[in-house]
Amino acid sequence: MSELETLILHGHYGTPNPLKVMILLEELGLPYKHVQVDITKVKEEPYTQLNPNGRLPTLEDPNTGLVLWESAPIVEYLVDTYDKAGRLTLRSFPESYHLKQFLALQSSGQGPYYGQWVFFARYLPGEAVAIARYKDQLLRVWSVLDKILEGKEYLVGGKCTYADLSFVAWEDGMRVKFPEFGLEKRASEYPNYNAWYQRLIARPAVAKALRINREEMAKAAAK
Amino acid sequence: MSELETLILHGHYGTPNPLKVMILLEELGLPYKHVQVDITKVKEEPYTQLNPNGRLPTLEDPNTGLVLWESAPIVEYLVDTYDKAGRLTLRSFPESYHLKQFLALQSSGQGPYYGQWVFFARYLPGEAVAIARYKDQLLRVWSVLDKILEGKEYLVGGKCTYADLSFVAWEDGMRVKFPEFGLEKRASEYPNYNAWYQRLIARPAVAKALRINREEMAKAAAK
Repeated sequence: MSELETLILHGHYGTPNPLKVMILLEELGLPYKHVQVDITKVKEEPYTQLNPNGRLPTLEDPNTGLVLWESAPIVEYLVDTYDKAGRLTLRSFPESYHLKQFLALQSSGQGPYYGQWVFFARYLPGEAVAIARYKDQLLRVWSVLDKILEGKEYLVGGKCTYADLSFVAWEDGMRVKFPEFGLEKRASEYPNYNAWYQRLIARPAVAKALRINREEMAKAAAK
Repeated sequence: MSELETLILHGHYGTPNPLKVMILLEELGLPYKHVQVDITKVKEEPYTQLNPNGRLPTLEDPNTGLVLWESAPIVEYLVDTYDKAGRLTLRSFPESYHLKQFLALQSSGQGPYYGQWVFFARYLPGEAVAIARYKDQLLRVWSVLDKILEGKEYLVGGKCTYADLSFVAWEDGMRVKFPEFGLEKRASEYPNYNAWYQRLIARPAVAKALRINREEMAKAAAK
């Protein structure tokens, strides 16, 4: 795919949704640049000209002229456009809809709840009731996925798809960037879930995206 | 479409995501039944056999054999399958992805935040910090949509689509079911947003879905 122009991912090393897209970009072997947007200026121009919602990420694809925000449709766009062989998707019925179902669970049921925990724990650590609520929600998501994954390697159709991969970024954020939550230890209580997660992060493209993310963080910390 | 078998929507009158699907079912003129699931047993069998995530809604379509949960992919499935004429969608590029973008904003940015407000306001009214946070988030979503809708009747492509319609159910929930929040009055501060919302609820199919929802509520209250 060397004839492709470089895709521009507007994101930030410290927030998981751009990393969710990076994992797909790496899996699909696409040329891309991760532009670090100043997180304190994300709700101001010029960024809001790209994304009036003032959130990260936004993808610009010069190959098609598309500007798209919200990580879930970006993932779908990348797979529709650049995974013609269907390596990371299932185009059969009903599997294609079950993939969308799990992507929706991730983007409306995992991301927002994990995000609320991080918000309260980091900025309002005195809000014990809210923090406990979101911890319960995280463990509930783990428990649901643990049951779904019983006897299975992947969520749908026996192969790794974009739906599985979409869960990695927030999970990594919670386990690695917030070691004080002790989630790495708790994970062994959810063996199917944890084995699946280890299987996903062992993939070379996922490992590479996570490594790049660590390097971006280290570079920012050294400034 | 009288040859179609009745679709089964597993939901509950008191929560907005099933209503989001009902609005699409009404718009598409599909035969359906809204089965009221006992909300206190949603995380138990037999419902979790249908939806292991224990949330509402789940759609069963006997015409295709599909069982699908998460309201956003259900909306996409209904449009893909039963809106062949493209009355409520745009299948051109890049509009088709912009519709997905707004559906994602609704399902990951509107629904979860409105839902957190309702949760704290109803069950933990002493949690003032959390309640203020989610009120700010709601007004932020209004302000973003108000700007996007400046000079426009609808979000994408100058016509009403599933993306516009997906916002109605939560908005109705907040304005009508929680009059104590005073949102009906505040809405006039966001004129483009409010005009768009009034345009949507004036549609006969939307009005019908909202009326059925009120009847379901009244019937449950009379028990």
